[in-house]
Amino acid sequence: MSSYRNQQYRLAARPVGNPKHSDWKFVSEPVREINEGEILVQTIYISLDPAMRGWMNEGKSYIRPVAIDEVMRAGGVGKVIASRSSRFAVGDYVSGGTGVQQYWVGAAEDKTAAFYKIDPRLAPLPKYLNALGMPGMTAYFGLLDVGQPKAGETVVVSGAAGAVGQTVGQVAKQKGCRVVGIAGGKDKCDFVVNELGFDACIDYKNDSVKDGLKQHCPNGVDIYFDNVGGDILDTVLTRINMKARIVICGAISQYNNTTPVKGPANYLSLLVNRARMEGIVVFDYAARYGEAVAQMGQWMAQGQFHTREDIVKGIETFPDTLMMLFEGKNFGKLILQVADE
Amino acid sequence: MSSYRNQQYRLAARPVGNPKHSDWKFVSEPVREINEGEILVQTIYISLDPAMRGWMNEGKSYIRPVAIDEVMRAGGVGKVIASRSSRFAVGDYVSGGTGVQQYWVGAAEDKTAAFYKIDPRLAPLPKYLNALGMPGMTAYFGLLDVGQPKAGETVVVSGAAGAVGQTVGQVAKQKGCRVVGIAGGKDKCDFVVNELGFDACIDYKNDSVKDGLKQHCPNGVDIYFDNVGGDILDTVLTRINMKARIVICGAISQYNNTTPVKGPANYLSLLVNRARMEGIVVFDYAARYGEAVAQMGQWMAQGQFHTREDIVKGIETFPDTLMMLFEGKNFGKLILQVADE
Repeated sequence: MSSYRNQQYRLAARPVGNPKHSDWKFVSEPVREINEGEILVQTIYISLDPAMRGWMNEGKSYIRPVAIDEVMRAGGVGKVIASRSSRFAVGDYVSGGTGVQQYWVGAAEDKTAAFYKIDPRLAPLPKYLNALGMPGMTAYFGLLDVGQPKAGETVVVSGAAGAVGQTVGQVAKQKGCRVVGIAGGKDKCDFVVNELGFDACIDYKNDSVKDGLKQHCPNGVDIYFDNVGGDILDTVLTRINMKARIVICGAISQYNNTTPVKGPANYLSLLVNRARMEGIVVFDYAARYGEAVAQMGQWMAQGQFHTREDIVKGIETFPDTLMMLFEGKNFGKLILQVADE
Repeated sequence: MSSYRNQQYRLAARPVGNPKHSDWKFVSEPVREINEGEILVQTIYISLDPAMRGWMNEGKSYIRPVAIDEVMRAGGVGKVIASRSSRFAVGDYVSGGTGVQQYWVGAAEDKTAAFYKIDPRLAPLPKYLNALGMPGMTAYFGLLDVGQPKAGETVVVSGAAGAVGQTVGQVAKQKGCRVVGIAGGKDKCDFVVNELGFDACIDYKNDSVKDGLKQHCPNGVDIYFDNVGGDILDTVLTRINMKARIVICGAISQYNNTTPVKGPANYLSLLVNRARMEGIVVFDYAARYGEAVAQMGQWMAQGQFHTREDIVKGIETFPDTLMMLFEGKNFGKLILQVADE
């Protein structure tokens, strides 16, 4: 037995609607000694993502549900603090499936956790959960592979100030597109326009999305990268161009529904416009992550690419911090810090 | 003034829900003499299609709405009975935009009517409004270009006994796919299995589509060619495979809605399965119609391709005959015969 105690959040019950405190079990357990081939990782930052809500549901999806009583699945970055594997040395920083817990112990080669080394000198650790992590990979490959932007086209992205949206817009700008974000509140809109360089941003909480699209997309919408679903998806569908591409990345407005998901009533706009709606799951691009990290890392180094993180401290805040996502309260990529760097 | 009188149906009012008799104006007017460069076509068969319902609505679509008091738009085949153009001779059979009327008069080169010669010795005239006409072109290019079937894949098509569905299923069989139809009633299901060679057919009026898909698509659904929308689209979405393609051709279940269109509540299955939903409009393939006619004509000549038409006589039946489409009462491609061959 090591001397560490490991605080964890485990799934206690499958939520109906918003995850409640009673859907979680907070556990503190001793960390076992590591065996040959294993490592002990101290989690520093945990990525909080809308997709986590889906993992809490029963049923077939692109990944198996988190089991009742299992540590909640999450990506994270941490530091190797004990190693009996030649793959990682003590002091290495790693990114992988830490789960919502302070320590991860297991085989260095574990395929589910899939740890890989990251370099804190190239970019601050939180960036590895943002543009250089899953949200960035999702944005990069979703936009480029599914959306296929061409210079001069108009790209609209919802959740524009969120982890995925920030990167979608900036990659689209790099490709010569006109980029219009949709975000909640003036601060977020100002941020994506003034700090990220979007051409415009529509504040869906205070303004009409329909009017905003008319004003800011005078030539229609060629690509819509959808993180939210619901009414915003339906409104954008009325403004798409011929041969438009709609990238279905998520539907955060629908994840906590207790009623059936609202399907896009305007989907026949796909027919009228010979347009395409296509889903993306980031794991399909695992073999190509390096390509995206290299490209976005280069843009970052050149000062052409910025991201913002919203870091909340303390593992004990997890249930409430997660809810910030569904209430639109995070401003930038939401990260839970559970140890000092 | 020629000696002919031309009975026509003109649009009197934009329908709310089902088109009513009062939405039509039945007119009989003399046919004018033709001028240099013009032809007079006697309509024999008029194509009745679900798309006609959309043309009656105000609003931006893939084609301008039929104007109030305008002759209802329709495709048809007929015979040239007078010509002052070198392009067509008296006695030529032609296909084009006759409208719902007994006679068409205008420039031989008219781009909207877009008449072209057809050969009644190669195939009976009604086939030129079915597999060798718009429904066939829609099916052929929608399946092959948008659906991209590969041998061994499972293709599901709704409206399977209808004009488009018949051809979709048979082209898919030619490509080596497993083909499962969805149609209303035992007779239609028996027809598509026994006469058209589909592997199975689900009778949505009497059986559960969900159970039928489980039974007849044991390996899931790779391509769904949707002519109906509504609940059937939603049910198929629960059974699609990774990288499935959903071809949105129509949504006949929704065309007469007086409430908003029902969007596909299960559209997030596109995300889970990295699948694609894409619209098709046949006019985009106009330059390639010859390719499809040649291929399907060859299959027909070899006895490998069959189609069924449901021919109703008398232009005065038009308002009621059109409604057969929305009530699922036609059995095969619905055609209005307004003159003898």
